[in-house]
Amino acid sequence: MSSVFPEDSVGLVEPRIAHFAEPLALACGRELADYQLIYETYGTLNAAHSNAVLICHALSGHHHAAGYHSPEDRKPGWWDSCIGPGKPIDTNRFFVVALNNLGGCNGSTGPASLNPATGKPYGADFPVVTVEDWVNSQARLADRLGIEQWAAVVGGSLGGMQALQWTMSYPERVRHCLCIASAPRLSAENIAFNEVARQSILTDPDFHGGHFYEHDVLPRRGLRLARMVGHITYLSDDAMGAKFGRELKTDRLNYDFHSVEFQVESYLRYQGDEFSTRFDANTYLLMTKALDYFDPAAAHGGDLARALAVAKADFCLMSFTTDWRFSPARSRELVDALLAARKNVSYVEIDAPQGHDSFLLPVPRYQQVFSSYMNRIAI
Amino acid sequence: MSSVFPEDSVGLVEPRIAHFAEPLALACGRELADYQLIYETYGTLNAAHSNAVLICHALSGHHHAAGYHSPEDRKPGWWDSCIGPGKPIDTNRFFVVALNNLGGCNGSTGPASLNPATGKPYGADFPVVTVEDWVNSQARLADRLGIEQWAAVVGGSLGGMQALQWTMSYPERVRHCLCIASAPRLSAENIAFNEVARQSILTDPDFHGGHFYEHDVLPRRGLRLARMVGHITYLSDDAMGAKFGRELKTDRLNYDFHSVEFQVESYLRYQGDEFSTRFDANTYLLMTKALDYFDPAAAHGGDLARALAVAKADFCLMSFTTDWRFSPARSRELVDALLAARKNVSYVEIDAPQGHDSFLLPVPRYQQVFSSYMNRIAI
Repeated sequence: MSSVFPEDSVGLVEPRIAHFAEPLALACGRELADYQLIYETYGTLNAAHSNAVLICHALSGHHHAAGYHSPEDRKPGWWDSCIGPGKPIDTNRFFVVALNNLGGCNGSTGPASLNPATGKPYGADFPVVTVEDWVNSQARLADRLGIEQWAAVVGGSLGGMQALQWTMSYPERVRHCLCIASAPRLSAENIAFNEVARQSILTDPDFHGGHFYEHDVLPRRGLRLARMVGHITYLSDDAMGAKFGRELKTDRLNYDFHSVEFQVESYLRYQGDEFSTRFDANTYLLMTKALDYFDPAAAHGGDLARALAVAKADFCLMSFTTDWRFSPARSRELVDALLAARKNVSYVEIDAPQGHDSFLLPVPRYQQVFSSYMNRIAI
Repeated sequence: MSSVFPEDSVGLVEPRIAHFAEPLALACGRELADYQLIYETYGTLNAAHSNAVLICHALSGHHHAAGYHSPEDRKPGWWDSCIGPGKPIDTNRFFVVALNNLGGCNGSTGPASLNPATGKPYGADFPVVTVEDWVNSQARLADRLGIEQWAAVVGGSLGGMQALQWTMSYPERVRHCLCIASAPRLSAENIAFNEVARQSILTDPDFHGGHFYEHDVLPRRGLRLARMVGHITYLSDDAMGAKFGRELKTDRLNYDFHSVEFQVESYLRYQGDEFSTRFDANTYLLMTKALDYFDPAAAHGGDLARALAVAKADFCLMSFTTDWRFSPARSRELVDALLAARKNVSYVEIDAPQGHDSFLLPVPRYQQVFSSYMNRIAI
């Protein structure tokens, strides 16, 4: 069996489910009486329980961060380039936990789950969840797994926001926070792009106010557009230029609206089509709201340093030069606030042409910096 | 009457219509047998007919560039800040012509016009028109008005592309080309945003394959989304931040999908709603295609300098520091090609926070540079 997977892979992995019967109070004022989280683990928890690393996922991520679900599986988990033996998050040293967040559509309780109050899918009635809520639910999962303190909480983009929130919500339970390609809050432009995505979904006639499950349809048009516009923001202008340029799909122009003229159109349509069949529209709405609402400084009069004052973790921040969704300037805001709050901070701005998506890719300099920080964490 | 309008306004203006019965051959291989152009003029054509300036509009523009249609009219034409007595395009000196392009929805022949072959609106059967086609139709309008040579052809964004094309299609007929916040061709990212806008419209169930006129509905959802995503690209992140920040619409968060939480959401929804009732969805598709297809270097093996070699005009280019739709780098590409082709070029990069929209706004430095160039044009 071992020969089936690459040597630096965690190999065959199996998701597990944790049920929680104790109600979880949410930021919106509502509560989830009962819920489950799906998760995977890689590596071995040591006797001192001091080597656990939590992976927090971004907008469309999930619990399957590394390895394969079957020998026939051709695609490993979404962060396989960073998790495994000898990789930045080295499973020879660390016990890695990756979960699907509440509100997700990959096995944790979410809008497609049955609402115990009605016996029907929650749909639009699923409560709006925030980064703080997720961190609280992750803390319960940590309790369940016997993890009193994480060696590190790690995430990129929206995942980086969760890693940050851990240091504020549970300062004693995080030794290191790795916050990659992230931001202390969304800009007006970030919110604007999320709003376009939401309006695409909400105005799709097949959305049925979020109760499309009962109508046996999927709001594919809306989800497809949301993904297309999202995808543009994940790449850089340079990356798109390098990947597609103005390359034509066929030899000559068609002069109509339906043909694909340029390769980039074909790419976007494919990304949108594929996503619209596998992702849940209500989950997409929830994820964009969690992004919009994240603003730890707000409760401290806009003073981010004061918000972070409570943290006890050491911080590692990374950003990518061509990321215009969460540009290096957004990471520097965080670095400045952390320094003002007298925290230990490492910050590296990595020269990479791939835009925001860089954090998911095996960029050599990124992996070096990532490995070198993780390897110095005492366990 | 004169006291009704500001002193530096061209005052009351009236659109005129020019009919053309001679067929116009188009780049797509089809032809328009018969068509009309709606236009306005400001100022007086001098005896030598040497003071005429053509204004070319951008994506959602039209012939009403300056002045007012009635004393009750509260909003002047779209470029009123730049056209009028003493303004950059000084109507005390120049005779200004502004038209609505073919395929438009403001009075020139377009998709909502009756197709003489069927007696029904063209709809999706209106031919795809290109920047070259527009310039050819504008040349016929010039003939009609007795203008052998333009003192200047002026445009921003897509309008700048038409100004450029004039110098290549009719080198003898343009003395000065003013190309503002424009680009020699779209980037892959530019095309990607256009494709999202098109897919929004094309997949709206009310679009009916472009024949919505016959169904007595408007594809408002699609046009609304197209405009929302477009609007994000017209502003800069900084401009959005300065205008909206993360300002909440109400005191507290609503934790739902339908409420407007942030001011920027309200702004985008308003822009989208307003546009979706006044603009034609087929015209929007045509305009984005004209943008995508513009690429004068393509016919010269990608050599822009060779494409521009034929030009006889002097060139004035302007760009805006925070414009990320057509960034200063895109104008510099043009400047480099024009210099390589040994043309006379002025280029100014204007520091303005408003992004791509700057070209429509009364930015003081912009107006100074614009005036100073126009004032030096001999008439």
